[in-house]
Amino acid sequence: MPLVSIDLTLLVLTGSSFFILGAYYQHHDFLSKVHRLIQEDPYAFYIREKLYDTLQLFNPYCLDQLDGSSSRMSQIMKYGFPGLDDIRVYSDFILSYDRRNRVAHWVYEHLRAPCVKSNGNGAHRRESYYQADMSVPSNFRADLTDYRDSRFDRGHLAAAGNHKCHQTHCNETFYLTNIAPQVGKGFNRDAWNNLEIYVRDLTERYGSVYVCTGPIYKPKHQLRGVTDAEHCGKVDDKWCVEYEVIGENTVAVPTHFFKVITVESKLPGGSPYMEAYIMPNAPISSSTNIRNFLADIREIEHIAGLQFFNGLRRSFFFGTNYSTASDIYRNFV
Amino acid sequence: MPLVSIDLTLLVLTGSSFFILGAYYQHHDFLSKVHRLIQEDPYAFYIREKLYDTLQLFNPYCLDQLDGSSSRMSQIMKYGFPGLDDIRVYSDFILSYDRRNRVAHWVYEHLRAPCVKSNGNGAHRRESYYQADMSVPSNFRADLTDYRDSRFDRGHLAAAGNHKCHQTHCNETFYLTNIAPQVGKGFNRDAWNNLEIYVRDLTERYGSVYVCTGPIYKPKHQLRGVTDAEHCGKVDDKWCVEYEVIGENTVAVPTHFFKVITVESKLPGGSPYMEAYIMPNAPISSSTNIRNFLADIREIEHIAGLQFFNGLRRSFFFGTNYSTASDIYRNFV
Repeated sequence: MPLVSIDLTLLVLTGSSFFILGAYYQHHDFLSKVHRLIQEDPYAFYIREKLYDTLQLFNPYCLDQLDGSSSRMSQIMKYGFPGLDDIRVYSDFILSYDRRNRVAHWVYEHLRAPCVKSNGNGAHRRESYYQADMSVPSNFRADLTDYRDSRFDRGHLAAAGNHKCHQTHCNETFYLTNIAPQVGKGFNRDAWNNLEIYVRDLTERYGSVYVCTGPIYKPKHQLRGVTDAEHCGKVDDKWCVEYEVIGENTVAVPTHFFKVITVESKLPGGSPYMEAYIMPNAPISSSTNIRNFLADIREIEHIAGLQFFNGLRRSFFFGTNYSTASDIYRNFV
Repeated sequence: MPLVSIDLTLLVLTGSSFFILGAYYQHHDFLSKVHRLIQEDPYAFYIREKLYDTLQLFNPYCLDQLDGSSSRMSQIMKYGFPGLDDIRVYSDFILSYDRRNRVAHWVYEHLRAPCVKSNGNGAHRRESYYQADMSVPSNFRADLTDYRDSRFDRGHLAAAGNHKCHQTHCNETFYLTNIAPQVGKGFNRDAWNNLEIYVRDLTERYGSVYVCTGPIYKPKHQLRGVTDAEHCGKVDDKWCVEYEVIGENTVAVPTHFFKVITVESKLPGGSPYMEAYIMPNAPISSSTNIRNFLADIREIEHIAGLQFFNGLRRSFFFGTNYSTASDIYRNFV
């Protein structure tokens, strides 16, 4: 009997120590492999701290560490990242920041009916204030002084009115990373605002809408009729990109803005509906219907250097029974 | 005796099975943690396949899988990534690609004396030919037709003459991802070429030189004296970014080009020496000394939206006993 008990103790001891040894071996092996990956791959290098955190021995990356914001992020980015440059995650929207122009490349939002309602009891716009995002390195950061005396409005990309469920969500839309110089009268306060209201209407109607908003620097045709002796030829037309930059930090003034809107169907398994808009950053007559600014998503992709819906074509992704015509839109469920 | 032998067998069996169990537990645990990280982090998402490969059970990520190119990459990028947008790895240089402008953000090279010598027996420029890089998605890709009839040279960012050790290295510098529209006479064939020759001279003299080259779209002052009734103010001066775009794919013509040159000391433990240049993409008089184009690295960082040497300041990183004056440069060992 004592022999059996010793045997049992020995077995348990051996078992548990070899279990730990096995776990340790595996941990060590992974650690060295991840280390090599970090040396090799710039993306891995960029998230090296997170990777090492993940691989910490006997310190599980608990589910409770993943607060609402991370699962919210995977929800907001459901339709893929249009680009991967300098990704910045806020509590209710996600953006990619353009360090050269000090304006976002794109801002993605996921709108839900309860948070866009004007009688929302959560957040008040008047309690929010514009502020520089100090997490951006100083030489790439837009500042309040850049917009002062600039003739331009501090225009929201993710609209404040889309984030009424929590005061924090609303406040964060006032970070200058989410702001771009917009013409005030006739654009930010009028046509662009109408487009934002239209998106909120869609949300109230269908419940779940994804919106990607961003700036565009559109080339324009220049006819000059100049004879350029230097290059032995007549340069009578060329295409140029031209945009103003404001303030000490040379914040770019986009020539246009785009919105890519994805409306989810209320039917289970129904295909989403998609629309894209390009509007000039200029005064637009109040009589102009916003549907005049409907655009091909490929034009936005081409000019902005972005790729929507992981590069899948519209026909592949969306119901082919929809077009951009407004009567068909009306029939969308 | 047979009892002891049974005990031993039992012990070995228990030990080994618990070892495997431990390893499996650890593996499973890591896998779920990495899975969560991938859901949470866009960079992790981007490299998810590599991450899963790394964590494959009992299929070690062998050292022999890491061929020369990956260790070469960590060598080329020794001084850090100036940016992380769309990184592309070639056999002897690494670049970050600007999908909006269809020109690289930056190209990093590590030059070594044997590969820049004009009597190198490895590669011949005349055997290389310009070609589009088909790995770039078609709507962001520059094409040969874009440069045709454009008045601009197809200017190398990583110079072909820096990669003479292997024909492949030389050939890859002819991918259009490494090419930018440059003014031919007075720039690409003259002043810019002189700067490239100067870098090769440094390499022959000191053995190991790191060069980062890229385009700049520099804002310029516009005095207009126009009264802008729309915005109720006199707009008498503003800063604008203006650059031409060529071809169907609207490839941007940079207004300037930069080079950041890091010369490693021959002394063991010696601090490196650093110089930065900005040259206008325009005809430059042949009598102009290239040292007239010496620039502050912070200016390049600010305009291009890049960060060199992981954002460490020059004085922190480099020997403070050096300045940009040429006589001090001459004393550098």
